[in-house]
Amino acid sequence: MDQQDPRIADLGFARVDIDRAARTGDPEVVYGAGKTPDQVVAILRALHERHPERAVLATRLAPEALDVVSRALPDAAIDLVARAVTLGPLPTPTGTVPVVAAGTSDAPVAAEAALTVAVHGAGVDRIDDVGVAGLHRLLGVRDRLEAADCLVVVAGMEGALPSVVGGLTGVPMVAVPTSVGYGASLGGVAALLAMLNSCAPGVTVVNIDNGYGAGVHAARVARQSVPR
Amino acid sequence: MDQQDPRIADLGFARVDIDRAARTGDPEVVYGAGKTPDQVVAILRALHERHPERAVLATRLAPEALDVVSRALPDAAIDLVARAVTLGPLPTPTGTVPVVAAGTSDAPVAAEAALTVAVHGAGVDRIDDVGVAGLHRLLGVRDRLEAADCLVVVAGMEGALPSVVGGLTGVPMVAVPTSVGYGASLGGVAALLAMLNSCAPGVTVVNIDNGYGAGVHAARVARQSVPR
Amino acid sequence: MDQQDPRIADLGFARVDIDRAARTGDPEVVYGAGKTPDQVVAILRALHERHPERAVLATRLAPEALDVVSRALPDAAIDLVARAVTLGPLPTPTGTVPVVAAGTSDAPVAAEAALTVAVHGAGVDRIDDVGVAGLHRLLGVRDRLEAADCLVVVAGMEGALPSVVGGLTGVPMVAVPTSVGYGASLGGVAALLAMLNSCAPGVTVVNIDNGYGAGVHAARVARQSVPR
Amino acid sequence: MDQQDPRIADLGFARVDIDRAARTGDPEVVYGAGKTPDQVVAILRALHERHPERAVLATRLAPEALDVVSRALPDAAIDLVARAVTLGPLPTPTGTVPVVAAGTSDAPVAAEAALTVAVHGAGVDRIDDVGVAGLHRLLGVRDRLEAADCLVVVAGMEGALPSVVGGLTGVPMVAVPTSVGYGASLGGVAALLAMLNSCAPGVTVVNIDNGYGAGVHAARVARQSVPR
Amino acid sequence: MDQQDPRIADLGFARVDIDRAARTGDPEVVYGAGKTPDQVVAILRALHERHPERAVLATRLAPEALDVVSRALPDAAIDLVARAVTLGPLPTPTGTVPVVAAGTSDAPVAAEAALTVAVHGAGVDRIDDVGVAGLHRLLGVRDRLEAADCLVVVAGMEGALPSVVGGLTGVPMVAVPTSVGYGASLGGVAALLAMLNSCAPGVTVVNIDNGYGAGVHAARVARQSVPR
Amino acid sequence: MDQQDPRIADLGFARVDIDRAARTGDPEVVYGAGKTPDQVVAILRALHERHPERAVLATRLAPEALDVVSRALPDAAIDLVARAVTLGPLPTPTGTVPVVAAGTSDAPVAAEAALTVAVHGAGVDRIDDVGVAGLHRLLGVRDRLEAADCLVVVAGMEGALPSVVGGLTGVPMVAVPTSVGYGASLGGVAALLAMLNSCAPGVTVVNIDNGYGAGVHAARVARQSVPR
Amino acid sequence: MDQQDPRIADLGFARVDIDRAARTGDPEVVYGAGKTPDQVVAILRALHERHPERAVLATRLAPEALDVVSRALPDAAIDLVARAVTLGPLPTPTGTVPVVAAGTSDAPVAAEAALTVAVHGAGVDRIDDVGVAGLHRLLGVRDRLEAADCLVVVAGMEGALPSVVGGLTGVPMVAVPTSVGYGASLGGVAALLAMLNSCAPGVTVVNIDNGYGAGVHAARVARQSVPR
Amino acid sequence: MDQQDPRIADLGFARVDIDRAARTGDPEVVYGAGKTPDQVVAILRALHERHPERAVLATRLAPEALDVVSRALPDAAIDLVARAVTLGPLPTPTGTVPVVAAGTSDAPVAAEAALTVAVHGAGVDRIDDVGVAGLHRLLGVRDRLEAADCLVVVAGMEGALPSVVGGLTGVPMVAVPTSVGYGASLGGVAALLAMLNSCAPGVTVVNIDNGYGAGVHAARVARQSVPR
Repeated sequence: MDQQDPRIADLGFARVDIDRAARTGDPEVVYGAGKTPDQVVAILRALHERHPERAVLATRLAPEALDVVSRALPDAAIDLVARAVTLGPLPTPTGTVPVVAAGTSDAPVAAEAALTVAVHGAGVDRIDDVGVAGLHRLLGVRDRLEAADCLVVVAGMEGALPSVVGGLTGVPMVAVPTSVGYGASLGGVAALLAMLNSCAPGVTVVNIDNGYGAGVHAARVARQSVPR
Repeated sequence: MDQQDPRIADLGFARVDIDRAARTGDPEVVYGAGKTPDQVVAILRALHERHPERAVLATRLAPEALDVVSRALPDAAIDLVARAVTLGPLPTPTGTVPVVAAGTSDAPVAAEAALTVAVHGAGVDRIDDVGVAGLHRLLGVRDRLEAADCLVVVAGMEGALPSVVGGLTGVPMVAVPTSVGYGASLGGVAALLAMLNSCAPGVTVVNIDNGYGAGVHAARVARQSVPR
Repeated sequence: MDQQDPRIADLGFARVDIDRAARTGDPEVVYGAGKTPDQVVAILRALHERHPERAVLATRLAPEALDVVSRALPDAAIDLVARAVTLGPLPTPTGTVPVVAAGTSDAPVAAEAALTVAVHGAGVDRIDDVGVAGLHRLLGVRDRLEAADCLVVVAGMEGALPSVVGGLTGVPMVAVPTSVGYGASLGGVAALLAMLNSCAPGVTVVNIDNGYGAGVHAARVARQSVPR
Repeated sequence: MDQQDPRIADLGFARVDIDRAARTGDPEVVYGAGKTPDQVVAILRALHERHPERAVLATRLAPEALDVVSRALPDAAIDLVARAVTLGPLPTPTGTVPVVAAGTSDAPVAAEAALTVAVHGAGVDRIDDVGVAGLHRLLGVRDRLEAADCLVVVAGMEGALPSVVGGLTGVPMVAVPTSVGYGASLGGVAALLAMLNSCAPGVTVVNIDNGYGAGVHAARVARQSVPR
Repeated sequence: MDQQDPRIADLGFARVDIDRAARTGDPEVVYGAGKTPDQVVAILRALHERHPERAVLATRLAPEALDVVSRALPDAAIDLVARAVTLGPLPTPTGTVPVVAAGTSDAPVAAEAALTVAVHGAGVDRIDDVGVAGLHRLLGVRDRLEAADCLVVVAGMEGALPSVVGGLTGVPMVAVPTSVGYGASLGGVAALLAMLNSCAPGVTVVNIDNGYGAGVHAARVARQSVPR
Repeated sequence: MDQQDPRIADLGFARVDIDRAARTGDPEVVYGAGKTPDQVVAILRALHERHPERAVLATRLAPEALDVVSRALPDAAIDLVARAVTLGPLPTPTGTVPVVAAGTSDAPVAAEAALTVAVHGAGVDRIDDVGVAGLHRLLGVRDRLEAADCLVVVAGMEGALPSVVGGLTGVPMVAVPTSVGYGASLGGVAALLAMLNSCAPGVTVVNIDNGYGAGVHAARVARQSVPR
Repeated sequence: MDQQDPRIADLGFARVDIDRAARTGDPEVVYGAGKTPDQVVAILRALHERHPERAVLATRLAPEALDVVSRALPDAAIDLVARAVTLGPLPTPTGTVPVVAAGTSDAPVAAEAALTVAVHGAGVDRIDDVGVAGLHRLLGVRDRLEAADCLVVVAGMEGALPSVVGGLTGVPMVAVPTSVGYGASLGGVAALLAMLNSCAPGVTVVNIDNGYGAGVHAARVARQSVPR
Repeated sequence: MDQQDPRIADLGFARVDIDRAARTGDPEVVYGAGKTPDQVVAILRALHERHPERAVLATRLAPEALDVVSRALPDAAIDLVARAVTLGPLPTPTGTVPVVAAGTSDAPVAAEAALTVAVHGAGVDRIDDVGVAGLHRLLGVRDRLEAADCLVVVAGMEGALPSVVGGLTGVPMVAVPTSVGYGASLGGVAALLAMLNSCAPGVTVVNIDNGYGAGVHAARVARQSVPR
């Protein structure tokens, strides 16, 4: 009977997979969208109890969920910009992942990516407001890009930043389109298409606003990279 | 009776507007798509007879049309890359329009834009192969961009070049998305959307592969600009 | 270290590029969408302090932001229709840009375009309610169209106005599709596609509702045009 | 048994509805796309035999089908531009339907509409090359528009003509978008969307390139209209 | 000066075309979307004053606008289902237009079409809840369909009703897709596409939820039809 | 080592799953698109050798593949309309699946569905040319619909037939949209969307032109149904 | 006169088809979207009065409708997750339909499907949280899948679950895409497309979030299946 | 003058960037689409002359280009399945990249990815025909997946394979959607959307059919990974 499967925590309203770390080496993560604040608290608590020695991450939390979690779990660390929380100690970072963002409005996605990288065991280097319409700022941080194990590049609107960054360095890169824009940005589809069509070789892409997915990939790459 | 309207040349299969120059100051143009080679020759000849002192332009000619035209109208100048011909003397150029292209595959669209600019009375400066994944080439021609009256910037795939150029200079710019690409480029829609969402202010856009439209706009701007 | 880059004003939550005027000749602009009212005030104040002699523009301000700005910056000029503010003296206008709008509902976009033109140093001529279903009004203002240095033409729904205007005059034109409409207007995509496919030569297009972008382009053209 | 249903002619490869005239008052029509030339001939012959006193129409015939039909049915009238044939005498026309076309490339669709109108019993008035970028031609035929019982207005690219015509007259109108164009015309979708969003009241629309459908509707309206 | 054009009523916030009746024979109409209740009242009052002898129509009014109008203009007739009002006497009806609706949820669009037909001078016959999944109801009203001068057929979801009605009768028809549905109905696009691809000849289509446009076309056809 | 997996036949260019029958009770099927005629022959032969007692099906064969197969495998049964072949004896049919098609052009998809049903062990009843614009034919076969175990309903263009059939009977139904149509049919997407939005309860849908998929589902349902 | 048609219950605001059971063998169902709570109560009551011996189902009820119904009809059974109610005794179940859901967020759609199956006379087996990223859970319930008469498989995001289930068993299956996801999920279109393109043979699909439609089809199949 | 820029090889028809290796550590690559066979030969020769010690790669070569290259450059290694060639010695592989493909039709894209991985310096492990509808094959190669430094997972149709693989292992993964499919696969868009919405964390995606891009990313990750 799978009810007694030790890889599953049955909370009644959900059957939580608590075996992911064994399979993939990654921490447990709660995707908060569509869950009530109480459900988020219950899942965080259950996962934390099984593995108190490593951080659990919850993402996509509405303001009220962030509020309920902060009161119910005083030990949780709240990241208001990323709309996410962690519970338990962050791992010692291995390698470095710059999270490069084009504009101020991309901050929530960049913050989600950065927190995800940290929870998944890699070091983070935030580089903000380096949009392609002002190249001097981007060219000024070229050394930090080159020193990385994997890059996360976040941009909305025309989504051009990954192409320019990809021309400057051969470091593995994940591009994250954001829904920043209006009209013909089509909710981020314009940036997504641009990144998929990048003329820079080796740019890989995740879903619109999916800082979490980019962070997981980048941290996995950084963790397994030869130290510089 | 509009049949005797002196602003119209009735060729039987088409009623050609020969009054455009009076209304807009631009030369007559034949859009070749969907016309037989013989029709193209007939229209070119009719327009040239009315105004032998200025060039007529025919665009979007299939290889066989280019061949028929070159034999029927030996005085016509054939541009194989642009798939276009001119008949009659080009005007003296006023002002300068750089036509900036991202990649080799964008050459036909860039050539159509360049020829259109020349026929419409402005000077052309071709700048090729300056894609955003190799910024050093683009930065190397910054002076030529700054010296322009209007820019035409041509790019396919992710369409990022106008954003980068628009960050380097405040010269008026027309961006031309091309259908170069595959898969998620959706026949040039990805580049079109990117250009419409450019974070560089003042970028205007024309239809996919529409070098002609960009050339008309740029030449009009250049013709009326204060000489430098 | 780019933190000390004199071209950047670091406000903590954003790194503001205060060097644009040197690069492009244009004023500083704050894109208000996604920023808190307090952030808008802080950026406006910072930019104004650096360059008190020229106007700063803030666009896409929600009603509460307009309210906060008007109270915090009593010298700011509020444009409720354009949902925008300026701070500092407008430049002396050079050249003329008619802003032509098809319908009453297009007024916010037309107002944003008009204010942008003025802030960027060109003169504005507003021509409203000249939709293509009532040609007599449009034909009545033909002289004002012909006298222009660059046209901004604003229309929603079927977006036909630029084609008709483009048949009347050869003045350089920027067309602005608006999101006015419902159903198959697809949030302005119908008007955008129509303008990109205009049979009038030389029509260039900006993003849906992007009065700002059209105004920047038109003002740049007008500023550099030979006085009539 | 429906095999013996007198309303159906069973040709083996198809069961032809020969009862439409009784139900709708319209002639029999063969949609030629996807049928072999021999099948077209067989259906035309069968329908003509049942009702030799009235014309049968076949549309969307490929060049080889036109050729086979003209040889197999010497009495058939071939319309090469419309890619259609009729067999049997056309009815006496009742009322008038102008078929108004924007450009030369729209001729095949306009010709299909015109022939359909005639076969369905209304008079046709062809008005060609009256695109919106040259208003003087359109304004010159205003009397012919006003004198109509129903209008068919055909346009590709930006599809603006119905809006302009609809502002000139209150005659019932059917708009036909064509696939003329490239790039962002999306195979005629741009013109289709424009017509559906027309600001002129009462514009109705048919499928892209569907001259036949527009002709049926317009002829039905003309046939039942009070004579002028 | 067009300010004194007697065909225009200048209300400050809008320039109202009061000449439409002379051009098209139709009444004045106010499109209420995007207008404040006070603007609607002002325009209705101005139009009514010029032509008190015939009804003015205002459509797409939000509940608060309906409320304001009913208090400010006690003589106005309010149609809560159609979200529309009329002011002034309805014309004597000429001819008959059945408004056929597939489902209960299509009622607002059908009501807008019906009121528009009445205001534009034709008689209305409402036929509701005759969706194609219950053919017996539709077959039961076949006589009323046949007796019509023009049909308005309203349906959401799969939009199949016009095809079935078009197979039953040859009366001219306008199909109105509605936004009723969810998921893959894409806000009414599924019904719109179905109607544009109808296998019944002569079906014409208007924009999603555009009962007004269908009503204008149908009333025009009915008014000019030979009485039965 | 999976190379020796008895469930796989390794043909060099492909590893063929020969275990499907054990897992699902269905015959082996070769999807011919993208395979050379020789590959199709090789796979058919290999599958037939393992299970000579039951038919193998190959679908989506180009004309040359049909030709090569008929010569290489003289025992194969060729279905030119379905562009498919079977090799080996068809099973004894259990239950009945009517394959109902709207128009003549839908014949290839209907034929693929019918052959698939037969190969998968159910009886087939073909009902053709029963489009919704001629209801009398459809109403005439109502008894055959009611007597079925599962229906396959095939239609292109507006895809309305499943809704009408679904209103006549409660027999389980699979709807198959076809790519028959042009313009706004968008290659069958219009019919697909219509079927997904059917107002008739219980209509399920497969991919455009996927007669095979519909046939598999319908045959499975028919095989397990209580005999009538 | 159809007003007295005994197959129709005329409630004033709607004409309810009370004859479906006779035609299709299924219970009456009220689609609650777009209806007021009072209308839902009235229709439920009317249908229940005609057929008190079998359950009536109402779906897509907003929270306030659920509340009104529970107070007005104390005998109704409320399903808060499915947002649905039943009134009257459920039928004795025949056959078994597992409702298999990929994630917790798919619960509302799965609940609607399950309740629909039960109301339509088949037995339900709920299998939740068996997403493809954790195959061990799915493989653990393989026996329950194999024992079914028809499967309902519910998934959002990438919609991969039906393909994996379809590889495990040959039981007839209906796949239900859900709108769970963000960005490039396009409101469930990504999952819908994935299911339509499933490489597992015989997967049929319903509209996004249409648990009701899947339940109707599956129950019909189960009811007519040979008992195991 | 950039003409003498040592980082550029000017071949007349193209300006080839020969500096990429210095910037990114990757080999030179020729994108063959849109280039004549002679141009491909010329560029390959030029790049090979500058760096004879390392392989040059040319992709997307039409059959005639493969033929011309093989005759003009006898030392080139031709990969007919990948439609690609290499010239010069492959580097010693570092790390391992399995290229996992769902179906036989995905072979060209998988071959392009595999060759790209090899040219970029990593080892390749090909795993073919492991579609999700036959899980046993995929589960049989789980060890090879776990032993990898980075995975390339290739699938068309519903694109489900990356989600299933991503649930089995935490190795960094790049997913490649292919254009294999028909109808609602929309040329690979269905698979692309599915992969972008994968419920498995950390899946990154490249353009449709872009085996090259996936190979570059995966090889970069593998080269820098700690040896196992």
